[in-house]
Parts: sequence; C-alpha cells; structure tokens
Amino acid sequence: MSSASPYQQLEQEWRRLHAFRGVLSLLRWDSAVMMPRGSAEVRGEQLAAIETEYHALLTSPKVQRLLDRAQANLRGLEEWQVANLREMRRQRDHAIATPASLISRLAKAASRAESAWRNARHDNDFKQFVPHLEEVLHLVRDKAALLGQALNLPPYDALVDEFSPGVGTADIDTIFKALNRRLPTMIAQALEAQQAEAVLPVTGKFTAGRQRALAVDVMKAVGFPFEQGRLDESEHPFTEGVAGDIRVTTRYAADNPFDGLLGALHETGHAMYDLGMPATWRDQPVGRDRGMALEESQSLLLEMIIGHSEPFVRYLQPLLLKHFGVAGPEWEVDNLYKRLTRVHRGLIRVDADEMSYSLHIMQRYEIEKQLLSGKLAVRELEEAWNSGMAQRFGRAPASVSEGCLQDVHWAVGSFGYFPSYALGLVIAGQLWEALHLQLPELDVQVARGDFSGVFGWLRERVHGVGARLPVKELIKEATGQPLGANALLRYLQGKYLGNLA
Amino acid sequence: MSSASPYQQLEQEWRRLHAFRGVLSLLRWDSAVMMPRGSAEVRGEQLAAIETEYHALLTSPKVQRLLDRAQANLRGLEEWQVANLREMRRQRDHAIATPASLISRLAKAASRAESAWRNARHDNDFKQFVPHLEEVLHLVRDKAALLGQALNLPPYDALVDEFSPGVGTADIDTIFKALNRRLPTMIAQALEAQQAEAVLPVTGKFTAGRQRALAVDVMKAVGFPFEQGRLDESEHPFTEGVAGDIRVTTRYAADNPFDGLLGALHETGHAMYDLGMPATWRDQPVGRDRGMALEESQSLLLEMIIGHSEPFVRYLQPLLLKHFGVAGPEWEVDNLYKRLTRVHRGLIRVDADEMSYSLHIMQRYEIEKQLLSGKLAVRELEEAWNSGMAQRFGRAPASVSEGCLQDVHWAVGSFGYFPSYALGLVIAGQLWEALHLQLPELDVQVARGDFSGVFGWLRERVHGVGARLPVKELIKEATGQPLGANALLRYLQGKYLGNLA
Repeated sequence: MSSASPYQQLEQEWRRLHAFRGVLSLLRWDSAVMMPRGSAEVRGEQLAAIETEYHALLTSPKVQRLLDRAQANLRGLEEWQVANLREMRRQRDHAIATPASLISRLAKAASRAESAWRNARHDNDFKQFVPHLEEVLHLVRDKAALLGQALNLPPYDALVDEFSPGVGTADIDTIFKALNRRLPTMIAQALEAQQAEAVLPVTGKFTAGRQRALAVDVMKAVGFPFEQGRLDESEHPFTEGVAGDIRVTTRYAADNPFDGLLGALHETGHAMYDLGMPATWRDQPVGRDRGMALEESQSLLLEMIIGHSEPFVRYLQPLLLKHFGVAGPEWEVDNLYKRLTRVHRGLIRVDADEMSYSLHIMQRYEIEKQLLSGKLAVRELEEAWNSGMAQRFGRAPASVSEGCLQDVHWAVGSFGYFPSYALGLVIAGQLWEALHLQLPELDVQVARGDFSGVFGWLRERVHGVGARLPVKELIKEATGQPLGANALLRYLQGKYLGNLA
Repeated sequence: MSSASPYQQLEQEWRRLHAFRGVLSLLRWDSAVMMPRGSAEVRGEQLAAIETEYHALLTSPKVQRLLDRAQANLRGLEEWQVANLREMRRQRDHAIATPASLISRLAKAASRAESAWRNARHDNDFKQFVPHLEEVLHLVRDKAALLGQALNLPPYDALVDEFSPGVGTADIDTIFKALNRRLPTMIAQALEAQQAEAVLPVTGKFTAGRQRALAVDVMKAVGFPFEQGRLDESEHPFTEGVAGDIRVTTRYAADNPFDGLLGALHETGHAMYDLGMPATWRDQPVGRDRGMALEESQSLLLEMIIGHSEPFVRYLQPLLLKHFGVAGPEWEVDNLYKRLTRVHRGLIRVDADEMSYSLHIMQRYEIEKQLLSGKLAVRELEEAWNSGMAQRFGRAPASVSEGCLQDVHWAVGSFGYFPSYALGLVIAGQLWEALHLQLPELDVQVARGDFSGVFGWLRERVHGVGARLPVKELIKEATGQPLGANALLRYLQGKYLGNLA
C-alpha cells in the first residue's frame, strides 16, 4: 500500500465506497420487496449507519489529501484515469458542500413530509401538507445555496447538476421552448386523427404469474441476465443493485396485460444501462451512469419508444397469445398497436403517453423553480398547479390527489430532478433517430425479438462511456448532433402524424 | 456529544456496531435465500467491506481510549452498565487478539477448504481434502495461540470461550464423562425396549406449500412475530436478522411431513431467544445472546425436547390432519409419538435423536482437540474417525462422506464450536426439568398449543438476562442447579426407560 500512488490509493478507497453503495442498494431493495411490515425502524437505523459511514469515508481528511496530491501530479495518468479523478472530485465536492447535519435534518423532514403527503393525498386535503412541504423546501433552499456556492452555479442549477451533470437551466429552457412550440398543436392533431380510428378493447383476467412469465421472456430477449439479476413485485417499479447483482421490480394489474410488462421494460432499460458500464471501471466513479437524465433516456427508450413501436408489437403479439391463451380480432397486431399508441390528455404524469409526457414535466419545472426562488409560496401551490394544468391540458384536476399531490418528489426534497425525465425522453428520441440511421435492419431485428443491434450500439456509444464525458458531450459523440428537441419532435411527427405531414 | 461520558460515548459506538451487525446478517440471509446464483463475487466484496469496517470500528484508537477511561471510573454506573462495559471489553479483546491479516488469510483459506470439502465429499475421497484442512488448521492454531495469550487461557479453551463464555475443557470433560458413563447403556436399553413396539410408517406426498402453512401455524402458536419476521426456504435451515426483523429458514422434503416443521422449530427457538433479549439493551453487547451453547439450548429445547414430547404431538396431530388432509391409524397420536421418538444408532449427526446426539459431539470434541494440539495429524483423521465411531456406535461409516466429511465446521475453521451443541442439549435438559418443577400446568398447556408458560418463564430466566452473566452463573440462577448432565440424563431415563426404572 505504501508504494501505491495517491491516485491508486484513491481507487482503493472508491472500491470500498462501491461496496457500500451496493449494500445500501440491497437494503433499499429488501425494504421494498422482502422486509416485514413492522421492521422499518430497524432498517432506518441500518441505512443511516451505512450512509453516515459512506459520507464519512467520502469526506475524510485522508481522501481530501489524496485528491489534492493526485490532482497536483496528473502525469502518467491515462485519459480514463484523469476522468475518474475528476468524477471523484465531483462526488467529494457534492458531498462536502452540504454539512452532514443539514443532510440529516433534511432526511428526517423528508420522512415526515412523505407520510404527511400520503395522508394529505388520501384525505384530498392540500392544507395539511403545507407546513411539511414548507419545512422541506426551507432545508432544500439551504442545500441549494451551499451547493451553488461550492459549484459556482445558481441554486436551482446546482440541484439539476446532481442529476444531469453539465446541464443547466439555459439548456433546459431552450429544449422546453422548442417542445412547447410544437407539442400542443401536435397533440391536438393526433387526437383528431385518432378519433376516426376504431380500437377494440382488450379485456380479460391476466394473472400475476402469467404476466411475470411474459415479462421474463421479453427481458431474456432483451438480454437481462437472470443468473446475476432478479425480477420481483413491488408497490412501485424500481431498479436496485449493482452490475453483478441487479434487481428490477414491476407491479401487475389483473385487468391490464401491458402495464406489468412495460414497467418491467422501463426498469430493464435502467438495468441494461448499469450492466453496460465499462467492466474495468465498474467499481470506480467513471464507470457509473452519467446521471438521471441518461438513466431515464435508457428506460424511456426501451419502454416508451421501443416498447410502443410497431415492430415490437409484432414481436410481442404471439407471446401475448401464448402466455394469456387469448385470441380474437382485438389481439391482432394492428389493433394492439393502435391501443398502445393512443394519445390522451390525462392529468396524471405516470400514465402519460410519449406525446404529452414532456408537458407534465414542464409544469413541474416551472413551479419548482418558483418555489425554490420564493416567487411562489407553498400555500399558493394548489392554485398555481390547477391554472397551469388548465392552460396546458384544457382542464384542472378534480382533486389535489390527481393534481399537485400526485408525485412524491417534492415531499422527499427532490427538487431539480423532474427535468431529467423530459431530458431523458429528448435524449431517447435522439438516440432512436441515430440508431435508425446507422442500423437499417433495426425494425426487422426488433420485430423478430432480436435486440442485439440496439444494445450493441447503445453499449458502444452510451453505456460503455460511463461517466467519462459530461451529458452534452456524450450525446454529441454518440449521435453526431448537439443535445436538442428536434429528433424527438421528428420522431413523434412521423409516428403520430406521418399521414398529415 | 462533548458532554457525554466515556461510557455513554461507548454506547453510541456500539449502536453503530449493532446496525452494522444487522446489515451483515441481512447480507448473509439474502445470499442464501434470494441472491442470484452468479452474484457471489459481488456479495463477497460487500461482506468483506462491511466486516473490515466493523473490525476497524471495534478496534479503533477512539474505542480503546474510551474503554480505558470508562473502566477507570465505574462510579455512577448501574449493574447492567458495568456488565455492558465488561462485554464491550470482551468483544474488543477477542477482536484485537488476532490481527486483521490473520483473519483475512483464514477467511480465504476457509473459503477454499469449503469448496474442497464439497468436492471431496462428492468424490468420497478424503485425500484431496487433506492439504486444505492442514492449511486451515495451521491458521486456526495461530489464532488459538494468540487468543489464548490475550485471554490467559489454553489455546483450545480460548476457542471454546468464543462460543460458550466462561466454560472450559474442565467443565466439558466433567459433563461428557457423566454422559458417557450412562448413555451407551441407556441407548442399548431403549433400543431393546423399542424393538417390541409396532410403529406404522407415515407415507405420502407432502407439498412444500402445505408444510409451510403447517410450520407458520405452529410458529404463530409459539409466538414468532410474522409482522417483524419471515420464514423462507434454504439449503440448510438457519436464523439471521436482529430483533425487529428476524428471519428463519427451513427446508422441505416431499416424503417427510416432520423435518420441515422441526427445522423451522429449531430456528424458531433461536429466534425466540434473540427476540426475548432485554429491550432497553437491544443494541448493546449486554443485550445479546450468551453465546452458542445458550443459543443451541434454546433451539434444541424447542425442537428436540418440546417438539418430540407427547403433549406437543397431541397438539400437532389435528394440525397434521388439517394441513395434509390425511387420516388413518398411522396418524394417531400414539403412533406419531412412537415414530418421532425412535432411538437409532445412525452415524449422521444431523439425523441423530436426543439420546445419541451427545455421543456424536464427544467424537468430534476428542478429535478436534487432538488435531489442534498436533497429537493427531490431518492425514490420520479418517482412521481416527472410523475407529471412534466403531467404538461409540458399534460400526464404522461405509464412506468418508458419511464419516469424517459429514460436517462443514472444520473446513471453515470452526474449532471449539462442537461442544456448544452438547452443552446446549445439557442446558435444555436442565431448563426443561426446572420448567416442569415450576409450571405444573406445562404439559397441559403445550398439549393445547399454549406456549406462553414456557416462553414467559424462559424470557424471565434466560432470554431477559442477555449477556449480563457468564454461562454457568446464568444456568445456576435460572435453574437453581449448577451446570451439569444429571437433569438431561434424568429426563432421557424417564422418557425412554421409565418402565425400566
């Protein structure tokens, strides 16, 4: 150890941090999938103990010293090592900017606010949630200010940076402006076009066991490694674990044959990203995902774009017949495709289609910026939400549960996270366009359940890059185009309005 | 924190250690029950990272300093706090006696030897296991010597002390001598008496689902808290977790209606012990089990003694009929009881009955002492085993798989552990006798599935003591009698040879 260079010693430290991350991830997986109902308190203590230790390791004087010494002598380091050192510093900067006491107060306030949010949603009563969200927002403001100082960014941009490194409000504003200029009209046109279509309903009772078997079949085709991974059920779908032991979940509704599969596909998109990281760097910061915008691009690409594409439905249809033992005109490819690509002006984000999804995000983006800056008071949130929805979707929600209380993010202090969903979809659209240009066989492959072309390309251009490049550079190198909304808009235009073009 | 006394600061440190222990336990549970087959390497890194950190916390200069300062000023500490401090020092002494490098080399050698043991057992070939066991034994000798120096005990006694605090070879020799003087004759007499009995075989196909439902029913009656615990399947039954989230496993054989239940009962005995610890001390050393001899006393009491008692069979019989949908003379209480209490001279420890179980342990005790001291070479083990078995059971095993390779303990470096099984049974016999003397209603209660008397008494006399007293004092206070074999022998005499007395 004494003969190891500062940089090598840092790699050793991060190997431990990687193991701790894997442990934290398993604890969270277990909490949601296996843990007995009455064990939350014990688990909370365990999570807190490991998180505290993780933070202590990351901000220890030893690591500070090694980072300084390694940075002072970059000679002899290869490109990946230099990038790795940059990511180490980035993690340290984020961790050290906010004192442990603030993080701990925020975690506790968030935990209280989450349960208040659950009750308020249940009671359809925004008022009881107000003081809790105010407390969380207050602490998030402190965090954003400190992070902003440390990273030399405006407060909101500092929060966004955690999820989408190198992307700021200027980039987001440009993209959202482009989307907002086109989407409302496109949605209106698509709705009109679809009104003329007859779509047969797909009904029946689809047991969890059969839905699971279907999901496993499709996940295997996609390349999910069940010898080093699991699929389970949970209240909300999620992905946990690390490469080598990756675990996804979904949920099944007995009257819906698609949602369980699509949930599993969304999470498999995340998992495939995590699994495609450069193997030699798997326990180092540079061998990790490039933040939540990229993560969402991978899950939305597989679920929303591929999973709702005509070739995919052609591949899926015989599997549906096999697993559910169904038949009839409503199970024909054409009808299934129409059913899966219905555009609707729903007011719930998680039920949104790819056409209107970004509008939901813009609504949240505008509001959370105003909340953070203080332009909007928490007590005014309900009204601001309703008028925003009326403007975007033509009507206000009938209740707060379906309005400003539908997402948990703000309650748990996740401000600056929402934009990564829309950025993810924009990136997914860009990758899909590039994939089509470079793989002429793409649709044929997908239609026969061959995903090797898609994931071979993604592994080379996106997954295998890890965190070597910031988001915008990564997209530019992968697609040849700067990050922007045009590819997504072209894709939506072609898919939904092709005959109107 | 600055105003906290050294003792209070130590409690704080051990709260963290307790959380780490819970995490390690969950990682082990997951490895055996949920983890994908191909994820062992990743899990190994996670376990090593947390274990290393645990060891580092326990032996840190800060903890050393605090232990010295707290020890120097015991005024103002209550009895439990003084005992807690003693247990903290005990844990530190054990941890610090063996350098981390030795522990790590032993862990690696044990891991190699375990897989060599598996192969040797499969191939029925002792020779290929010899070099691996030699390597492990060599390292265990170093560990025993260092521990012995630190604890001022002979090497083997130092190993035993880890599992049965305060119990030494002198105690074990006295107990084993008493057992050895009586058991061979008693077994011969019991076998003869049982030869005259007609026992109908119990056959059928007992699905895992039904066996599980039966086990859950019985565990609920015993008091296992399913809202803070789980029952799962694994290759070998075990208990993991901590109070607040306790998890037991068992395994089911489709042709055997009892073994799955009895395995679950054995583990439930461990779990009830862990759950009965004094609640205020649950995250401190004094609020833990009093070592493996006590742990085994609790599992063997519930599985071997209560689970094979006539009142328990009366309680169980209607449940068997209900869950397996069976009927017939072979399912009558009298026949079931006879079947469950058959004495046999089998050569496999884990299949042994309560009569011959201790003989299996004595065999291992004698051999492992000789291996450790060097009196017996590893290459002579097979022969020594076979001649010992011939002497104790009248015949040598037909193969090494059923002989000296039947247990994994030595391969993984667990020397000094075996005596705790026999000590556990001896203690269980003593507790059972005391229970009967003080609870005249005991049999009536058990026969109606009421275990509140048993566990109320155990909680008060054994579980609730935690680690406040060493093993021998604990038994003396709980039963009014010194630790010894007589109660067990009286119990076996009455149960199997009552009509011969």
